[in-house]
Amino acid sequence: MQIDFLLFDELTALDAVGPYEVLARLPGARVRFVGKQKGRVACQGGLGLYVDTTLDEVSASDLLVVPGGFGVRKLESDESVLGWLRAIDATTRVTASVCTGSLLLGAAGLLRGRRATSHWAYVDQLTALGATWVAERVVADDKYRTAAGVSAGIDLALTLALELAGKNVAEAIQLSIEYDPAPPLQAGNAQRVPRALYDAVFARTHARDHESAAR
Amino acid sequence: MQIDFLLFDELTALDAVGPYEVLARLPGARVRFVGKQKGRVACQGGLGLYVDTTLDEVSASDLLVVPGGFGVRKLESDESVLGWLRAIDATTRVTASVCTGSLLLGAAGLLRGRRATSHWAYVDQLTALGATWVAERVVADDKYRTAAGVSAGIDLALTLALELAGKNVAEAIQLSIEYDPAPPLQAGNAQRVPRALYDAVFARTHARDHESAAR
Repeated sequence: MQIDFLLFDELTALDAVGPYEVLARLPGARVRFVGKQKGRVACQGGLGLYVDTTLDEVSASDLLVVPGGFGVRKLESDESVLGWLRAIDATTRVTASVCTGSLLLGAAGLLRGRRATSHWAYVDQLTALGATWVAERVVADDKYRTAAGVSAGIDLALTLALELAGKNVAEAIQLSIEYDPAPPLQAGNAQRVPRALYDAVFARTHARDHESAAR
Repeated sequence: MQIDFLLFDELTALDAVGPYEVLARLPGARVRFVGKQKGRVACQGGLGLYVDTTLDEVSASDLLVVPGGFGVRKLESDESVLGWLRAIDATTRVTASVCTGSLLLGAAGLLRGRRATSHWAYVDQLTALGATWVAERVVADDKYRTAAGVSAGIDLALTLALELAGKNVAEAIQLSIEYDPAPPLQAGNAQRVPRALYDAVFARTHARDHESAAR
């Protein structure tokens, strides 16, 4: 199975690496990291990831995964990327996104009239692209799978492992990455946190997104 | 706060990127990715991460994070790395590991007589290095924090965020990465899975580790 991750500057590293750690363990997985140029892209916070394949080297994929991050904003009007997403999507078995990666799928016109999700602070942007927001961690509509913010990509990928390779394989992967989460706090769900926390993180996120766009 | 991640070939990407996504969001965080040479290291599965700082450029750190992976085996007898770990550990506020990163801390002599953990399939190797294995997801002993396998690094990092920056900051980070895990299966805890699954994953993990060592 050919699995492709779109990489770009100011992506959120865990959006890509969470699903990667699961999906690269699927039997027969071949993984490419695709971007506008080969070489280093800088994630939010500075971590460098490597693009090994350029957009024009990829004409088809079985499973396309689009991560999010502040870098999404610069790509939302970049027809070289949006056209590529549409072309590859026409060949995939599954097209998936994590976090604000769904805004790129939406900007490419792929989520119009579909149920989908995104990072909780970007729900308005998602619905403005014609999708119907569903308050679930992983949302399926036809062959599209969209995940909520950042860490939800791990749950997305295990859901895909279950669908694509069956329960035995998915359980073995879950055990190999010891995914038995035990957060020390309970502040991960935007619908269940105090309003002050929600507002503070919402405001800070959008302020940083604007700063990023101005650079 | 200066935060340093040790990177090396055949590390497990999520061991490093899970904690990175949390810790890089701490107020005042400065993050370096430290390795033997600058440039690309290849994670298990092929993803390239970028080393921006060499071992000899780092003489002190506030928080050292050591990930695991099959590459650990080649470093366990590499005095240039073990000596560096001891030297930097002498300067840290916290020394932490994820997955089999604890075997590197152990090989450097830092876990002798201490409570610690590792990936569940490497408990014997951990105890052989003089540590006492504790079956918890994140284990604290003095300034050492060791996490269980791969995905446990996220829980480790949130625990550290709580300790180092307080509840408000840790909750804001948890909400920003929408860490409200919902695995579709319940196979992440080695002490609670069927014996056949445990044995199969244990055998495959060690077979791949040996293949990696032979390359």
